[in-house]
Amino acid sequence: MRRILAGAGLILVATAAGAQDAPIIHDAEYYILEAQHAAQWAEDDVAVDAALARFREGNGGKSPNIVNILIDDIGFGDLGIPELNAVRGYETPHINQFSDEAMRMVRMYTEPSCTPTRVAQSTGRLPVRTGMGDTSVDISGFGLPGSEVTLAEVLKQAGYNTSHVGKWHMGDVAEAFATNQGFDYAQHAIHQQGQLTIFNEDAIREQVSVGISDFDPAYTLDDLFRPDSSAMMTVVEGEAGGPIREIRMEPGERWTAAKYDEMNQAFQDKAMEELERLAAADEPFFLQYWPMVPLDNTRAGRDGPESPNGGLYVDKMQMLDGWLGSFFEKMEEVGVADNTVVILMGDNGHFTKYSPQSGYTPMVFRGGKGDTTEGGVRVDSFIRWPGMIGADTMINNIIHVSDLYTTLARFAGADQYIPRDRLVDGVDQSASILFEDESKGRRDHVIIYSIATPKAIVKDKLKLNLPGAGESAILANFFDIFRDTHEKYPVSTEVGAWGGQEFQRILKRHLGRKEMYPDIPPAMGVPYEGIENIRPETAAAVEAFLLKQSSVTK
Amino acid sequence: MRRILAGAGLILVATAAGAQDAPIIHDAEYYILEAQHAAQWAEDDVAVDAALARFREGNGGKSPNIVNILIDDIGFGDLGIPELNAVRGYETPHINQFSDEAMRMVRMYTEPSCTPTRVAQSTGRLPVRTGMGDTSVDISGFGLPGSEVTLAEVLKQAGYNTSHVGKWHMGDVAEAFATNQGFDYAQHAIHQQGQLTIFNEDAIREQVSVGISDFDPAYTLDDLFRPDSSAMMTVVEGEAGGPIREIRMEPGERWTAAKYDEMNQAFQDKAMEELERLAAADEPFFLQYWPMVPLDNTRAGRDGPESPNGGLYVDKMQMLDGWLGSFFEKMEEVGVADNTVVILMGDNGHFTKYSPQSGYTPMVFRGGKGDTTEGGVRVDSFIRWPGMIGADTMINNIIHVSDLYTTLARFAGADQYIPRDRLVDGVDQSASILFEDESKGRRDHVIIYSIATPKAIVKDKLKLNLPGAGESAILANFFDIFRDTHEKYPVSTEVGAWGGQEFQRILKRHLGRKEMYPDIPPAMGVPYEGIENIRPETAAAVEAFLLKQSSVTK
Repeated sequence: MRRILAGAGLILVATAAGAQDAPIIHDAEYYILEAQHAAQWAEDDVAVDAALARFREGNGGKSPNIVNILIDDIGFGDLGIPELNAVRGYETPHINQFSDEAMRMVRMYTEPSCTPTRVAQSTGRLPVRTGMGDTSVDISGFGLPGSEVTLAEVLKQAGYNTSHVGKWHMGDVAEAFATNQGFDYAQHAIHQQGQLTIFNEDAIREQVSVGISDFDPAYTLDDLFRPDSSAMMTVVEGEAGGPIREIRMEPGERWTAAKYDEMNQAFQDKAMEELERLAAADEPFFLQYWPMVPLDNTRAGRDGPESPNGGLYVDKMQMLDGWLGSFFEKMEEVGVADNTVVILMGDNGHFTKYSPQSGYTPMVFRGGKGDTTEGGVRVDSFIRWPGMIGADTMINNIIHVSDLYTTLARFAGADQYIPRDRLVDGVDQSASILFEDESKGRRDHVIIYSIATPKAIVKDKLKLNLPGAGESAILANFFDIFRDTHEKYPVSTEVGAWGGQEFQRILKRHLGRKEMYPDIPPAMGVPYEGIENIRPETAAAVEAFLLKQSSVTK
Repeated sequence: MRRILAGAGLILVATAAGAQDAPIIHDAEYYILEAQHAAQWAEDDVAVDAALARFREGNGGKSPNIVNILIDDIGFGDLGIPELNAVRGYETPHINQFSDEAMRMVRMYTEPSCTPTRVAQSTGRLPVRTGMGDTSVDISGFGLPGSEVTLAEVLKQAGYNTSHVGKWHMGDVAEAFATNQGFDYAQHAIHQQGQLTIFNEDAIREQVSVGISDFDPAYTLDDLFRPDSSAMMTVVEGEAGGPIREIRMEPGERWTAAKYDEMNQAFQDKAMEELERLAAADEPFFLQYWPMVPLDNTRAGRDGPESPNGGLYVDKMQMLDGWLGSFFEKMEEVGVADNTVVILMGDNGHFTKYSPQSGYTPMVFRGGKGDTTEGGVRVDSFIRWPGMIGADTMINNIIHVSDLYTTLARFAGADQYIPRDRLVDGVDQSASILFEDESKGRRDHVIIYSIATPKAIVKDKLKLNLPGAGESAILANFFDIFRDTHEKYPVSTEVGAWGGQEFQRILKRHLGRKEMYPDIPPAMGVPYEGIENIRPETAAAVEAFLLKQSSVTK
């Protein structure tokens, strides 16, 4: 049951939870907007349906293919703006060309780090709803619950072939793996680049990280303190329902910078292969390519700088740009350039812990990965769909990364498979995107979490940094993020009076609604269970993890 | 006499100082570069001469017209990049269109504030060389020396008609006025927007500034402490050799926001009129239009916000964009769009003292007006010359605003009139601009002064913040300004070892060369002398100024 405002009174509207023809269940703010725009939205929905029907008609009755390229740790302005390429001293001509063929979603908000953004995009839900707000970097024994209905699963139900290549980073337990989350085929790393580029021997030698070899073993009482990153699971491959196996890593083998290069090249090659394979099938396809580069923290075994910037990530971004250029070319070759929606975006802001060696520091906005300032959660974000979405266009309405779930499902004619038994944060942004009309957006706010704590609320052009526990809301800072992209000059506003009461009410409604639709815990389990060829050192590392875990309940 | 490096040895080359066929005298670093690139530069010079000759041939034997539009307090990225317009929440479609027809000089360095930038552009010399490094805001009794040879004077000698409209801000003594500095006609404010938008009654009422009316007169012992900004000279008009008169201000009249609007509209109208008049003449022309907007600090008598940003300066920037659109259209109408070089740029970074009400805060770079960080001295900067300079292009070599003096003189075939009896900081950037070739730039560094103190040196992508007096150079911070546009992450470099000795030597050579070519003082005199219709209150204000001045030598 939900309440909507109609005219001056309140009306109670019954919704049959779980029924697939029932409306999607959203967070509280959605209904406040819906009450004000219902008539317009209904009209827009008809126009969207008509546009999508026209597309399918011209595409042999089929829904569009979807390619989703998610790039790690890219801030706003790193891609698609040649002037800012020049400011930074590097070039991304292929992505800039892609940008000229696409729409830029200027106010795309992600979550502040890798895991939560990937969860939000995959599930259409704030990561906090499944305890997935944090980015885990080593063996952790948790992950995305199997009960989540991912975009891949939604599309699968609508007849899509699905494939995932590259990063994954949504947990190390079986039910979290890509082939258990809707992908027919997957080749993905289990963890992230920390293991693969920061904590290996090459990085320790280059002083990127501090390893055991820098410490006198005489002082080492706890041999389990430092995980052996080479012992952690690296890359797995499998098919839905079939076995999952670690690939390209033999027992006793050490992970190196050379292996990182090999892995990245393999992901690129596989993404190209999958594109070709999927394009040849009758069914529409959903291909996710989540590269691990540009993150790369050493020069071990590599040539010197390749851009005037010369930063480690920047040089790899140039390389990735070339790779994506080949990918887009391949799309032409295999005849899917025109009937495929391509999303290309960053997952969160710059990884400032490795600035300025990375070559990237926050530029247009303040802060980077992990921050809830705009620099942490505003990224370059493009969507291309020839003939359906205007080339070289922009929209400036607020879009949250979870909205892609809902919107892409709609584009695919698969929105009936979005679950109706839970709260979905993603709203349908089809009308604003298809008609390049900012006023047709269905969101005017985002609640920005850091892990499990709401830290800021953006509504239209105002941003309130929420007071911490025991801090007076009267002193909480408002920022005008059009005027002040670096959030340095607090302003007062009419809604800011008395501690931004109206913003606090947004938060209260959001939290209140959690009583009806409570957060659930992540999936918990034995790490790597279900992977067939676990190396002995990997098994030992899991054992060490379990030993440490059991110390709490000793 | 100067020394150049040729092969392994040193050769002494005699130059006849003052001879017009002698080379221009530059600062020390120029000769270090010249010694390394002399052969290439000679070759480039031949190609530049050929290109310019071809232009003149196609233009009835005439050199190009030059239009110079200098916009106040605009940071990098405010103009010409639609994505960043969207981030800010406003639009400059006409300037963006202009940008598409022009070349962006990505690494244009200005001086940190209005007066010094205008002096550097007008004289080709660092403002410190004439004691003009500071921005004076009220009656001051000094200005640009008549002995300086301005670009207008250089072009005049080559047969150009010259006209100046708008801001001037290079002093309040007679020899500094535009009609005494090479302009056949001028209509310009004497001071700047402080007087006209910040210290008037409207601004005091809106709490932009604190005025006498906010202070109990019982405590006012010194009636001369606060200048009456309405008594200060406002806008003058005149012709070279003729009388100069203040316009649109009657004795006893108070300056208001409405009068500021009237003045700005009049500048725009006059710029359009002058364009039409100059285009009809036989001679090539040099028209300077230096608008006072977007600076505007009140909403007195005006409508509400006109952009989603709604900032006071931003809204006026949108208005100015429309005005400049009309100006460019008029260029087409009167047939000079194709044979005119148009420079459009900012004079320094954002005026953060009025952020965020202005709507602007530093975005791509750190700091604003008055700062020697990149945000103070990096601005949007475009040059359009159809058929000669590639449309929608960029160059990323370092250009200092003084280089425009030398380069525009070259474009005009007037470089023989650049004085040879003094040091000229501006170098000839023709080859890099005409051939869109960054490697043909003739500067790889800038020495950034704040008023009379060198504060930072940029060389290729490194920036050293010079240590202050008594501060150890070992701790001076280097920044990689490609990787770190906000100068937040100090780096160490091979030239940084031991306090950046090589950078300190650049400074020493620069200061050493001042012994051969010493700085001169600014022109000093009685403020407003030579203006015909001084109001009684203006005369009284001058008297007060002289009384205060004489107190020092009492």
